[in-house]
Amino acid sequence: MKFTKMQGIGNDYVYVDCTKTELKNASEVAIKVSDRHFGIGSDGLILIKKSDKADFYMEMYNADGSQGKMCGNGIRCVAKYVCDNKLTDKDEFSVETLSGIKILKVRKDDKGLVSLVKVDMGAPILEASEIPVDVNNLKNYSNREDKRVIDETIEVDGKQYKVTCVSMGNPHAIVYIDNTIDIKDFPLEEIGPKFECHPAFPEKVNTEFIQVVDNKNLNMRVWERGSGETLACGTGACASLVATNLNGLCDSNATLHLLGGDLNITWDKEENTIIMQGPATTVFTGEIEV
Amino acid sequence: MKFTKMQGIGNDYVYVDCTKTELKNASEVAIKVSDRHFGIGSDGLILIKKSDKADFYMEMYNADGSQGKMCGNGIRCVAKYVCDNKLTDKDEFSVETLSGIKILKVRKDDKGLVSLVKVDMGAPILEASEIPVDVNNLKNYSNREDKRVIDETIEVDGKQYKVTCVSMGNPHAIVYIDNTIDIKDFPLEEIGPKFECHPAFPEKVNTEFIQVVDNKNLNMRVWERGSGETLACGTGACASLVATNLNGLCDSNATLHLLGGDLNITWDKEENTIIMQGPATTVFTGEIEV
Repeated sequence: MKFTKMQGIGNDYVYVDCTKTELKNASEVAIKVSDRHFGIGSDGLILIKKSDKADFYMEMYNADGSQGKMCGNGIRCVAKYVCDNKLTDKDEFSVETLSGIKILKVRKDDKGLVSLVKVDMGAPILEASEIPVDVNNLKNYSNREDKRVIDETIEVDGKQYKVTCVSMGNPHAIVYIDNTIDIKDFPLEEIGPKFECHPAFPEKVNTEFIQVVDNKNLNMRVWERGSGETLACGTGACASLVATNLNGLCDSNATLHLLGGDLNITWDKEENTIIMQGPATTVFTGEIEV
Repeated sequence: MKFTKMQGIGNDYVYVDCTKTELKNASEVAIKVSDRHFGIGSDGLILIKKSDKADFYMEMYNADGSQGKMCGNGIRCVAKYVCDNKLTDKDEFSVETLSGIKILKVRKDDKGLVSLVKVDMGAPILEASEIPVDVNNLKNYSNREDKRVIDETIEVDGKQYKVTCVSMGNPHAIVYIDNTIDIKDFPLEEIGPKFECHPAFPEKVNTEFIQVVDNKNLNMRVWERGSGETLACGTGACASLVATNLNGLCDSNATLHLLGGDLNITWDKEENTIIMQGPATTVFTGEIEV
């Protein structure tokens, strides 16, 4: 099987062109290739297929073989793959995913290779019951008319935090940490799991810890439900921009500085949609027996 | 740069044929390719070169760019590489390393590809001062005439353990755990670092925790100095066979069951040398810009 290893700010997948050939047992292949000692090593496997509803179909498998719906860092690499490998000559095209059809726009370097990709990530979901957040498990919920969770109090492990909650198809809790510490020293491993399993989040939650540098720059670390700390989380970066803008702490466009790299996020309020722009990188090409 | 990713019981390196071409900045390339998210992902980089003292020269770099002396799992893959890629047609040949010249013997499958490799790992070193072990930091050292450390008492974190020490070029402490627990449940993360930094080991130590299944089979987990738990440690398996044989608990030939796979170790007492036999596997081939 020929493949390309690509990464978007550290979120790395094995990409296979299935527009002309078929890959059988994709779930088993995903488990095998994802292993970082005995396989290629990746966060999962992404197959690029034809679609009858969009220009391409992105079929995504996690490292455990389960099917994923959508990955913001992964879909940018799909865009780079289809352009660099001449599967399309368009600079704007659509990719079908299990989370719907996404529109992508690419920017090319002087060699004609894609360097940056913009993805329309859709509208943020803010109503507590849809995120979902169980407001009865917050401290003194304000009972806002719009049922949002913005700057509310949550008690975690005996300590009170201010939290803002946003869904981008998956639930996020955003918490602010002050600028007196280096964000790398924040004890995420200790606090992250306690947010993840807090009763306010019936489907668990991804928690973003944000430092506001200025109204155009946010530092972020993320604890993903089921995965622990990761180098990058595209939907988490989108949710954090929305939350921080709602709290009046940043512009509707800002750069999020994650451990794996930077993402530029814009909340287009007219269209009520989030545009994520970030890099996509080809690491190497290879061939493996599967 | 064309490369082959290979592994020996989970110890994985990027292998590059430098018999005809030269690789510049190998240390920097090692750091880059070893990164498991932004690079190929490996424990390091191994260059296969010509030697004027042996059939080949193995130049080894760790993931941090530092040069390694020798790796038992790595050198088996070198043997497979040079045979499968027809750089030699011999079944027994020599490889120069920074730890001296090693003799390798390969066994091929019915397709003519190498499946198992035997490596002569040299003589074990047993005298305390040469390992080195500071016997004054053991509890009531027996003051044996041969100055060995066999079944002596060491106090670690307030608890007494029986320890046997062997060097295979690097220092090893071997400790036995009973068969009533599953070796996977042993709290290695907690106990390993306390052995590593114990004052009895002036150059720190690799610690092998061994369960004797019977006189031909040992289960092993290893805490490597500077690395923590690893899937496999070839010299640790050799040291463990020697220690366990000296304690009268196994034969001079036994199979060591490590997390990453099995190694068969023989202590040839006539020649006073340790023969390690284990698998070597090609995972994939690829090409990367460096």
